[in-house]
Amino acid sequence: MDLGLCFSGGKDSTLAGLLADPFFDLTLVTVSFGVTDAHIHARRIADIVSIPHQTLELDRSIAEEAIERMVADGYPREGIQYVHEQALEALATESFDAVGDGTRRDDRAPTISRPFAQSLEDRHDIEYVAPLVGYGRGAVDRLVSEHLEIETAPSESLAKGDYEHELRALIDRRHGQDTVENIFPDHTQSVVRGLR
Amino acid sequence: MDLGLCFSGGKDSTLAGLLADPFFDLTLVTVSFGVTDAHIHARRIADIVSIPHQTLELDRSIAEEAIERMVADGYPREGIQYVHEQALEALATESFDAVGDGTRRDDRAPTISRPFAQSLEDRHDIEYVAPLVGYGRGAVDRLVSEHLEIETAPSESLAKGDYEHELRALIDRRHGQDTVENIFPDHTQSVVRGLR
Repeated sequence: MDLGLCFSGGKDSTLAGLLADPFFDLTLVTVSFGVTDAHIHARRIADIVSIPHQTLELDRSIAEEAIERMVADGYPREGIQYVHEQALEALATESFDAVGDGTRRDDRAPTISRPFAQSLEDRHDIEYVAPLVGYGRGAVDRLVSEHLEIETAPSESLAKGDYEHELRALIDRRHGQDTVENIFPDHTQSVVRGLR
Repeated sequence: MDLGLCFSGGKDSTLAGLLADPFFDLTLVTVSFGVTDAHIHARRIADIVSIPHQTLELDRSIAEEAIERMVADGYPREGIQYVHEQALEALATESFDAVGDGTRRDDRAPTISRPFAQSLEDRHDIEYVAPLVGYGRGAVDRLVSEHLEIETAPSESLAKGDYEHELRALIDRRHGQDTVENIFPDHTQSVVRGLR
């Protein structure tokens, strides 16, 4: 079964890929709005875990709508949720039998509801899978520490692969760095450096 | 990470075991009330998939309470849910780092809510994992057909390993076969015969 899994290069989506890999013909897919080269960093991490990778271009208007929502809200959740759903919709039109992501049980955003999953499956005649959604933070942290080498550092200094990086860059261009820091106050992020 | 996974010998819990096996020190655990030898059939299926197996005895009073609830309701859902939660509670007191089960995204019963999972984890300082809960029926059916050989037949003629078999036997003893058939009208079940 061909699976296209949304992939940021972060520890959750990397672990989701490791869990799924033995059971699917897996491709890690990084969406890009062409704003930054974040997807190139994601590809490097896919190479580290030896799983095929592709980049999926999304329309820039999706990013523009997402950042305007974030700026209006003052927090990123709804904008991130919107981008993630659009990414799954786009992925579902590619030639995969199944699409999925690295959402965990405890995630606040993005989170895929059962009705959204069912609707995506029905409209695209596809399966939606979330290999990590049966795992809470404790189990995920422990599996990550057992299987991956992780570097944690301030966001600015890490070359992250996900669309959040592009959305931050776009907010910076349109509204300035202060607005970025108001919307994303947590500066610490983590990237995958290797397999254990 | 030691994982004790509730195991009926059915296709869902077997697939959950296969998904978890590469990432955990896995034991498949079949609960038994000592009513029938269902757990011996479960052990046979664990042997087929080459995963360690143990039987966990639960107090017969749990089965008695479950069947009285089923008989009063006229359907099995709440009774099954009760037994499943009691099984996880008992499993959580064993010496595992994590406990889990083979619940799917679309399951009606048993189903483990996020608050129940969090409570189980907090009270027992343990992780709860559900390797299959990120997969819907379509994905599960396809993974099962790719990885397992399954036999489907009327329930009566199949030697199933799960506690449902024991609960049916107990209802038969207390209330007769007609009551069993009223509560469990669906006679078709499936058992695992091998790995593909």
